[in-house]
Amino acid sequence: MHLYDNLESGNCYKVRLLLSHLGIPFTKEDVSVVGDRDAQRGEAFFARNPIGKIPTLVLDDGTALVESTAILYYLAEGTPYLPAEKRARARVLQWMSFEQNNHEPNIATARHELVLEAEKPSAEQVDRWQSAGHRALRVMERHLTENDFFAAGRYTIADIALFAYTHVAPEGGFELQGYPRIGTWLDRVREQPGHIGLRD
Amino acid sequence: MHLYDNLESGNCYKVRLLLSHLGIPFTKEDVSVVGDRDAQRGEAFFARNPIGKIPTLVLDDGTALVESTAILYYLAEGTPYLPAEKRARARVLQWMSFEQNNHEPNIATARHELVLEAEKPSAEQVDRWQSAGHRALRVMERHLTENDFFAAGRYTIADIALFAYTHVAPEGGFELQGYPRIGTWLDRVREQPGHIGLRD
Repeated sequence: MHLYDNLESGNCYKVRLLLSHLGIPFTKEDVSVVGDRDAQRGEAFFARNPIGKIPTLVLDDGTALVESTAILYYLAEGTPYLPAEKRARARVLQWMSFEQNNHEPNIATARHELVLEAEKPSAEQVDRWQSAGHRALRVMERHLTENDFFAAGRYTIADIALFAYTHVAPEGGFELQGYPRIGTWLDRVREQPGHIGLRD
Repeated sequence: MHLYDNLESGNCYKVRLLLSHLGIPFTKEDVSVVGDRDAQRGEAFFARNPIGKIPTLVLDDGTALVESTAILYYLAEGTPYLPAEKRARARVLQWMSFEQNNHEPNIATARHELVLEAEKPSAEQVDRWQSAGHRALRVMERHLTENDFFAAGRYTIADIALFAYTHVAPEGGFELQGYPRIGTWLDRVREQPGHIGLRD
């Protein structure tokens, strides 16, 4: 397998983290995530990958799979990181979809534009991310008050998906001191066998 | 099954459209999508549904499932609307995740705030949605140049997910005249047996 990757991207990190847990060997190459990404990646990249995003995982038969949720689900099927029972799998997908719809577009985008991009966002934009991002963190904190993990009572790809940008949320201006359950859960994720860091 | 629903929400419509295709009976009740939604829905709603969003589908055993992607995937398993083959399923999930991460947060959010909310967004915010929303539409147009549907060579829940907010994109200020392949695909979706409209 070959991964189009970037060490600052939490979405790419999710894939590397699961591959590490699973002990699956892979090659990787770095793709820029700053500036006009579509123009930099060029037509050859889009020809293989119409969505044009990373991570892109190229399977051994040449299939190029995009979107972290789809890649994680594909890799985790039949492993302890995705339960086999249908309702438990639905719950995993629920939290992964929440991450991509409510968490990442605010918390990851704020971090991306504040830290990595040359042109800085307006105060109005930062306020919008703050409001929606803290709503997502409150949802997580509420769930973790009664649960150790996000789905199926154990560590799954739902935790991997939510860990990636939560643990670097302070880089985007989201302080986590007000979320003690999230803090405990972050440590619980770090203790999983095969855990690696964002830039490992 | 019981659906917490709203007739203006494309995410709720996705679930009603698939339930119509499948001929599954259900009850529903309307939940507001304007103003301070969290406050309106109240603690009782959150107790059952920590994410607090609609659609929420309550299964016959009382399980409350949230997030349109998770609900569609759950309902479609074992039906013609989700292929059984693993790579084809990954491709379905890829396009559904793209919809929730790149399409819905721009195209649906623009429509929502411009049409439904009393407080109107700033010009800067509208520009941001326009730029990212049109990028998502270009990705779709590119894919549809060589494909009749989004995954598996046939109509699946990936098409349902993308149809919901694409067919009302003009309400959010996204004109579709420049996307002829999307126009043809919208008609193809409308021709599927059991199709219903957004407010049917």
